[in-house]
Formats: sequence, C-alpha cells, structure tokens
Amino acid sequence: MRQFVVVGHDAPTDADFPLSDLPGSAGRLDLLARSLLAALLRSHGIREDTRVHLVLADQFTLTVDGSTVRSLHPDERSAAALLRSTLENRDEAVGQIPVETSPGITLTRVGLAETIEGLKGTVFRLGADGRSVEEVEPPSNPIFVLSDHRAFTDDERALLDDVVDGTISLGPETIHTDQAIAVAHNWLDRTGDR
Amino acid sequence: MRQFVVVGHDAPTDADFPLSDLPGSAGRLDLLARSLLAALLRSHGIREDTRVHLVLADQFTLTVDGSTVRSLHPDERSAAALLRSTLENRDEAVGQIPVETSPGITLTRVGLAETIEGLKGTVFRLGADGRSVEEVEPPSNPIFVLSDHRAFTDDERALLDDVVDGTISLGPETIHTDQAIAVAHNWLDRTGDR
Repeated sequence: MRQFVVVGHDAPTDADFPLSDLPGSAGRLDLLARSLLAALLRSHGIREDTRVHLVLADQFTLTVDGSTVRSLHPDERSAAALLRSTLENRDEAVGQIPVETSPGITLTRVGLAETIEGLKGTVFRLGADGRSVEEVEPPSNPIFVLSDHRAFTDDERALLDDVVDGTISLGPETIHTDQAIAVAHNWLDRTGDR
Repeated sequence: MRQFVVVGHDAPTDADFPLSDLPGSAGRLDLLARSLLAALLRSHGIREDTRVHLVLADQFTLTVDGSTVRSLHPDERSAAALLRSTLENRDEAVGQIPVETSPGITLTRVGLAETIEGLKGTVFRLGADGRSVEEVEPPSNPIFVLSDHRAFTDDERALLDDVVDGTISLGPETIHTDQAIAVAHNWLDRTGDR
C-alpha cells in the first residue's frame, strides 16, 4: 500500500469555513483538497491501494482510504466539501479512537507524531536534501510525509529525523505538495513497486 | 521553452458560468484550471519558461505565458475566475489575432489545428501507446498535447498524427491531465532539458 501524510499547518479543525475562500479563511484547505485528489485519483478511477492522511493543525488527522471511499469528485470544491462534512463530526472523535464519518473516511484526534507512529511501512520525508529518487529502490509499502505551503517546523523536523527511513528528492525543482504526490505516484508506477 | 496544449472538449466559450459548479455547468473548467496551475506553478513561484494553451471547444484558445503573467493564485477557483474574466473579452478576439486581456494572458479565436500550427518546438502527444518517456531524449522546446477527461476525437487524432514528432508515455497508469503535466515537468526537471 502507498500512503501519503500531508501536514496542514494552518488547516481548519472545525467546519466553520466557506467553500468560496479555501486559500484564505479556510487555512489553505485548497492545498489539502488538491493533495487528497492527487493521492487518490487516477483517470476514471480511484487508486485503491492508496491511503492519505491529512494532519490538521496537529490536532486532528483525517484519513481517506482509496479501497473503501465512495463518490470522490475530481474538483477542489467537492473535495473541500467532503473534508468539511467530515469535520462536522469532530465531536465524535474522542481520545485516539478513529471515527468513520462516511465510508472510507475517518477522523482521529491525533497529530503528526501519533499518526506516523500508527503506520506500517517505509517512511520517506521528501526534501531537496535527500537522495535522488531515481537511485532509490521503491519499497513495497512506502509512506511519504509532505508539508503544505510552509516548511516543516523545527519540532516536526526533529520528530521526522527520528522516524524516517530516508529522505528522498523527486527532482531539482521545489514543487507544490499535490504535484509532488503525482510525481511520487508516477515513480512507483514506473518502477512497479519492486 | 516548455509548452502544454490542453484540449477542453466541453469547455465554455463565454463567461456565463458560476464558479461554484465548475465540473458541471462550466464544462469541466475545474480540469482546465488545475492544468493551468500544474503547468505554471512551482513552489512559491511561477515557471517562467512555460506557456500553456487551453483550447476551448475548438473555438477559442486561451494562452497564459509564465514569463509575463501576474498574480496567479494556486487554487482552482481563482484560476477559473481568471479564465472567466478572460472570456468576458471574447468579442475583442477577432480573426486569428490574439488579444491580450491582461498581462501574459491572450485569447485567440482559433481551435486546435491553428494553435499547434503556430507553435515552434517538438510536439509530443501523450498516450499509453507511446514510447516510454525514460527512453526519450528531452528536446529543448517540448510541446505536450493533452486531452481533458475525454479521449481525443478521431479528427483530433488524425490531425495530431500529421503534426506530432512522437507519442510518449509517462507511465503505465492513465492519470489526470494536471497530474500528467506535473509528471512531464518533473521529467524535464530531472533530465535537465538536455
């Protein structure tokens, strides 16, 4: 299975935001929505072997599982609406028990550290300082940890340094989070998840 | 220079559509908006060496030039608003003379054939039947022709067969147009536009 963990530093933790201003009053939820779509959609279908975890302001993690999610529309607004309706159920997420708010979508009251701790696979941080991806043998269960429009904080970097199996670079340009997800998928597609 | 030509079969040719329903009443303008952003944006900046051409229902072509465009926001809604405000000036596009509706954005009353005819470079069609991109030497002025959520029509295929320099495949999965643009950029970034 392929997994993507996206850290949304300014992300909303409640459903009180308008769909007409995702970059502003919704704390760059546009970016998280695009990342979700890049992770789970291929042409005319869903990547069933993929799971994406959106870490919202280090307070909640919203997980979407490609094998069980239904009715995922390809546009940013619909994806943001899905995230918002998930957050409407935030009070049901108690302790560290995930609550399934709709098929394939769960919300858990945990931040980045607990989220990564709960995953099984080879954890990669993406960064310009990493090994070129073309020299890396893709593992069978890769987990990519990415940040939003902001760099990882010092605390996040320290945490990641402890848990990652390696830092890899997708290329010489720094690109958007959703673009990086598309490129990482393509790397695994081409190399056949050897 | 890198260029992307995206064929929007159902795209609107006037500004009479709501930003709140891009996939439906705006003829999949969500897809064209995402393609525009994938082509022109990198992290915290614009790809100045890139130009994107959106072919709208084979009637108009809207071109955005990364070297001169200003104020490009990263979200789909803002990009769609930019496309819509360009279409408000459609009456100024007469004959085959491009009209610059705002800095770096031009609208021309031409379809796919005339658009490709006017470009200088190596024209690639992207398709699963093509040579693997990893075996292809990137040219200095690549032009990628992509379709939206629908396949190229028979007429478009016949036209492209006449003008393309080659068909290339980015990988074994069929992916969304904007994802393909991100992957094509990464290919050129990695291989250094040799």
